[in-house]
Amino acid sequence: MTVTADMAISLDGFIAGTGVTVDNPGGHGAEPLFEWIHNLASWRERQGLTGGAENRDSELMREWFDATGAVVMGRMMYDTGEEFWGDNPPFRAPVFVLTHHPRPTLVKQGGTTFTFVTDGIHSALHRAKAAAGQRNVDIAGGASTVQQYLGEGLIDELQLHVVPALLGAGLRLFEGPGTGPQRVEQVRVVETPLATHLKYRFVK
Amino acid sequence: MTVTADMAISLDGFIAGTGVTVDNPGGHGAEPLFEWIHNLASWRERQGLTGGAENRDSELMREWFDATGAVVMGRMMYDTGEEFWGDNPPFRAPVFVLTHHPRPTLVKQGGTTFTFVTDGIHSALHRAKAAAGQRNVDIAGGASTVQQYLGEGLIDELQLHVVPALLGAGLRLFEGPGTGPQRVEQVRVVETPLATHLKYRFVK
Repeated sequence: MTVTADMAISLDGFIAGTGVTVDNPGGHGAEPLFEWIHNLASWRERQGLTGGAENRDSELMREWFDATGAVVMGRMMYDTGEEFWGDNPPFRAPVFVLTHHPRPTLVKQGGTTFTFVTDGIHSALHRAKAAAGQRNVDIAGGASTVQQYLGEGLIDELQLHVVPALLGAGLRLFEGPGTGPQRVEQVRVVETPLATHLKYRFVK
Repeated sequence: MTVTADMAISLDGFIAGTGVTVDNPGGHGAEPLFEWIHNLASWRERQGLTGGAENRDSELMREWFDATGAVVMGRMMYDTGEEFWGDNPPFRAPVFVLTHHPRPTLVKQGGTTFTFVTDGIHSALHRAKAAAGQRNVDIAGGASTVQQYLGEGLIDELQLHVVPALLGAGLRLFEGPGTGPQRVEQVRVVETPLATHLKYRFVK
């Protein structure tokens, strides 16, 4: 059982822009982080769209979708995505949403369920592991959720999609009291025209 | 004429540890940034040492040495290196040191000269370009010197040697008022067991 996180990040270390809100979850100036994704065939297929590019980036995205057996996300990511994802969300797996407000589980089409977890990040991870079968648990975001799991040493593999841009300001992945000195192992580097995909494993 | 900068950086974006002083220029906790360098044959040769590993990392280091026709560095880097470099410093090229205190040029063995520039970073770069011939000018450091040149848009190519470690704290390369949104082009990625070497070109 591998716990993964998979983030688009700028060369200067930002995973979102400035002024992140529910209405603007990427923040201002964050477009370069995500534009490489929108035309990938594998991403489009998960959104119910046709077409798109069948390239190495699309393969990596498909590999990540296929490897993921359950997902953990923060409340803000859920709130911002809920409407966009619609009746057939892209996850096709059980999703555990961290929240302070209990709510019945939602069963969507295609295998996605949203279970609302009110007793903390360890509990959500425990439940996601139980649901993932032989596949990975992915900590999908947002930034502060990934930071919490990183800070607790609960992530095994981190894949960073380094986009060739500086944002200059925004929300950093590696910031705050949770991050301390740690060795990691390089797992894989894939360079494409769109991004450099770096995968690391945390040394326990 | 290409202006380069070449920095070892942790996965979490630090190029030095905490508490950087002349007596401890790397700062506390920065050892993982530099330990991959010390056994490279090309680095050792420039320090007047024998032996070391002839590997891809050593090739990259030699490529960088060979491509550099002149060097710009900050006063603190000079002060911390002066004694260690001795009579035959590793640069083997004209070095321009940013300082507020005029001082006669020092001529060392092996082609290294140290010229002390008191009228700012543009002047130092101008003089270095004139001295570099057909080769590159490298902005060698320290961190704040590289940040100043980055902030003024004066660096053409940035090579980051990403070491597989989190420092958790320290001095970030990308921080401060000088860094803003900018597109960059991926030039090259080289993965070795010791580090992932990312080279980018700034889009003017």
